[in-house]
Amino acid sequence: MMQQEHMICGGARVILASASPRRLELLHQVGIRPQVEPSRVEEVITSTAPEQVVMELSRQKAEDVAGFHAGEKALVIGADTVVAADGQILGKPKSREEAVRMLSMLQGRVHQVYTGVTVVACGGRNRTPVTFFEETDVWVYPMKPEQIAAYVDTGDPMDKAGAYGIQGQFAAYVKGISGDYNNVVGLPVGRLCQELMKLEL
Amino acid sequence: MMQQEHMICGGARVILASASPRRLELLHQVGIRPQVEPSRVEEVITSTAPEQVVMELSRQKAEDVAGFHAGEKALVIGADTVVAADGQILGKPKSREEAVRMLSMLQGRVHQVYTGVTVVACGGRNRTPVTFFEETDVWVYPMKPEQIAAYVDTGDPMDKAGAYGIQGQFAAYVKGISGDYNNVVGLPVGRLCQELMKLEL
Repeated sequence: MMQQEHMICGGARVILASASPRRLELLHQVGIRPQVEPSRVEEVITSTAPEQVVMELSRQKAEDVAGFHAGEKALVIGADTVVAADGQILGKPKSREEAVRMLSMLQGRVHQVYTGVTVVACGGRNRTPVTFFEETDVWVYPMKPEQIAAYVDTGDPMDKAGAYGIQGQFAAYVKGISGDYNNVVGLPVGRLCQELMKLEL
Repeated sequence: MMQQEHMICGGARVILASASPRRLELLHQVGIRPQVEPSRVEEVITSTAPEQVVMELSRQKAEDVAGFHAGEKALVIGADTVVAADGQILGKPKSREEAVRMLSMLQGRVHQVYTGVTVVACGGRNRTPVTFFEETDVWVYPMKPEQIAAYVDTGDPMDKAGAYGIQGQFAAYVKGISGDYNNVVGLPVGRLCQELMKLEL
């Protein structure tokens, strides 16, 4: 019996260039056990289109960490996620008030979540990094101010783009999505596994 | 600060008429801590349409368990999930071979997942049970026979309708969905919470 990790990654060591516990958990879910080595690169954004921003940042993170592993047989994965509503990008809220504002903006309508991913294959043949993004539409039920306040009080919004985590209590307010669910959590593992298998490692 | 459970269920005790650990986990996720009391009712199906089947079975389960709690202030939740492809209903596979057949049928295309839910409010005013269903479309990437075999070898398919669990290793093969993700896991908690809040408990 062949393990799924070997089927997807060959014998390569996988390095996750992100400190996100949710991305690590998603890789574990599909059977991949990466080494975690967050990038400390200074983020440089040259675009305003959300899909370009997340691809750009994922590539900076992956290439930064890959720089420390040149010559090794390793796959470095970088990722970045943003929420967008009416073309406006929402990052992580900086205060309770900003979280309330973001959630008031997202309730009762649809918005978009973008995750960009870059895979750099270190060592051996000189491969071009693979970069892609996935977009998911998310519909949120109407929320009353006291429901938003109660959710913000859980503390859950503070470390998350758009001030919510679809995998937590916020699920009570999610009507449905169109696209990859794990992309909203922070890593489109389905697409990622398909791209890794195309590399034929 | 009002807890989300109280906001959704009022002071009512919640009873889950299902043995599914995934349904229990989804209720925990939105802050609801039910008592688990699986129904042992003999399931009777009078329909062939998947959405009718799941609503019918969810109602039989909820009413069976509610029968033991007449007069108490309790909410009994019953649920049933099936997978359908080309109108054919797929339940839980009875053998390894059947799991392989189901997955071979689902790979490289879209199929539907239906969950029916019934809520019976025991005690007090004589309320009519609330029954609804949610439908989610799921797109699966093409899978090679050795990928299907490796997934079946994990043992994950055997207790699941359609022979896969979207929340496990199978995520490597899910391209995207349209509808509620948790509906595919086994309980549309977003819609359920909205229906519970409408009851104004």
